[in-house]
Amino acid sequence: MTESIPQALIVLAHPEPRSFNAQLAATATDALEAIGYEVVCSDLYGQGFDPVEAPRHYTSRSDENWFRPQTEQRYASDTQTLPPDVESEIKRLRSADLVIFQYPLWWYGPPAMLKGWFDRVFVYGELYRSKIRYDTGVFRGKRALLSVTAGAPAATYELNGRNGDMDIVLWPVHFTLHYVGFSVLPPFVTFSVQGGISYTEESEMLAELEKSKAQFRDYLTRITDAKSVEPIRFNGWDDWDTEGRLRPGAEGHSPFVRKAAAR
Amino acid sequence: MTESIPQALIVLAHPEPRSFNAQLAATATDALEAIGYEVVCSDLYGQGFDPVEAPRHYTSRSDENWFRPQTEQRYASDTQTLPPDVESEIKRLRSADLVIFQYPLWWYGPPAMLKGWFDRVFVYGELYRSKIRYDTGVFRGKRALLSVTAGAPAATYELNGRNGDMDIVLWPVHFTLHYVGFSVLPPFVTFSVQGGISYTEESEMLAELEKSKAQFRDYLTRITDAKSVEPIRFNGWDDWDTEGRLRPGAEGHSPFVRKAAAR
Repeated sequence: MTESIPQALIVLAHPEPRSFNAQLAATATDALEAIGYEVVCSDLYGQGFDPVEAPRHYTSRSDENWFRPQTEQRYASDTQTLPPDVESEIKRLRSADLVIFQYPLWWYGPPAMLKGWFDRVFVYGELYRSKIRYDTGVFRGKRALLSVTAGAPAATYELNGRNGDMDIVLWPVHFTLHYVGFSVLPPFVTFSVQGGISYTEESEMLAELEKSKAQFRDYLTRITDAKSVEPIRFNGWDDWDTEGRLRPGAEGHSPFVRKAAAR
Repeated sequence: MTESIPQALIVLAHPEPRSFNAQLAATATDALEAIGYEVVCSDLYGQGFDPVEAPRHYTSRSDENWFRPQTEQRYASDTQTLPPDVESEIKRLRSADLVIFQYPLWWYGPPAMLKGWFDRVFVYGELYRSKIRYDTGVFRGKRALLSVTAGAPAATYELNGRNGDMDIVLWPVHFTLHYVGFSVLPPFVTFSVQGGISYTEESEMLAELEKSKAQFRDYLTRITDAKSVEPIRFNGWDDWDTEGRLRPGAEGHSPFVRKAAAR
């Protein structure tokens, strides 16, 4: 058996090439290369990725008169006519053992640039079908993690915090990754990053950036040790009844159910 | 005192002009006009709205060398150089007494087209500042509501459901609206809308559509009666301590805190 080189994909969504986020993506590249990964970066702004799911991406259509996104995604998958930019991202995902999403939290979610990457790249038929989802998803065995910057301080992202619990705020993207089968590692979150607004001195921001870089480097170094960084738990097919509700007695792993139970 | 005609804005985000979503937007227009509203629709796909926050939108910059979105938004607001497409949406928001967002739930959030509308149109400096947020927000006194279609059945969107509690799934957008001061009315959610995939017959989908239209019409007719449709409760400045956590004794209104307390 030949040992293959592990592959990582970093998906970066920030408009400024020198931003806090871009620098954390560069840090991740260095840290992963240092532990033997080959790293590819999908710099969505740099690539000029088009995040808008729309008819213009489909050269051949299942129904010319009524654009149903999922129907056309599946048709494009079946007929091997996926949009080239989507196909290229899917190829990167299929090659990756680890995927890192690096983005700022804007209005409690990913920037449109990344939201639309999910809308367009997670193609129905190609990356999920009715029985190929969750723990039977196409990317099972692969790992993913979010590295997110938030403008507000950590206290505001607690369960009782003004901005709401960070695990719950990140849940839509975490669950999307679980949906296509990824093992999702705990997120790396940097708080109080406001692109300069909140810093009285530029040097203060640079010091924070260096601190975050060091912490991120340390975190990524530890992910090779499965015992030191365990994936987030999700429910899977065995836990749900035919209606899609948790079976009686099944333990709920979504953050709201878990945190409700803990109180 | 002259009685002025109430104004409504419908923000529609779906790529197909004849979609379930587009038809619900048309239904809302009819229903609101029938009760005396003047209605304007921002059909984001129809307008070709660009949802990507990026340097290209800013003709004059606070910092030419480092693009910080919030910094440039505030500078554009201060210098009255907002991008024309953003300015036009803000003008519509300022005129509206009621704003309806009509969109399909894609990956547990709004399509990129609508996510980016929030990223770009909810301009720092113009629509919020440190002390002008939440219950002191610029749009206080105005009402907003989400009308959302979801592909999966209602049971999967319960607290113990596979897709997670709908109130929690919608919370990022609800809280964004509260952030700029809107009173947020309970959402109108249509489940099991899959753009044709799940229907064995086209007639089945059309019957569902007619049912949803009638329910939406009924709901919108009732919103003129404040007692029949009360806004969702949110916490405000008085509830939080200086760190941004709920004060001891303050009742938490976010859906996760509320549902955790109810168990």
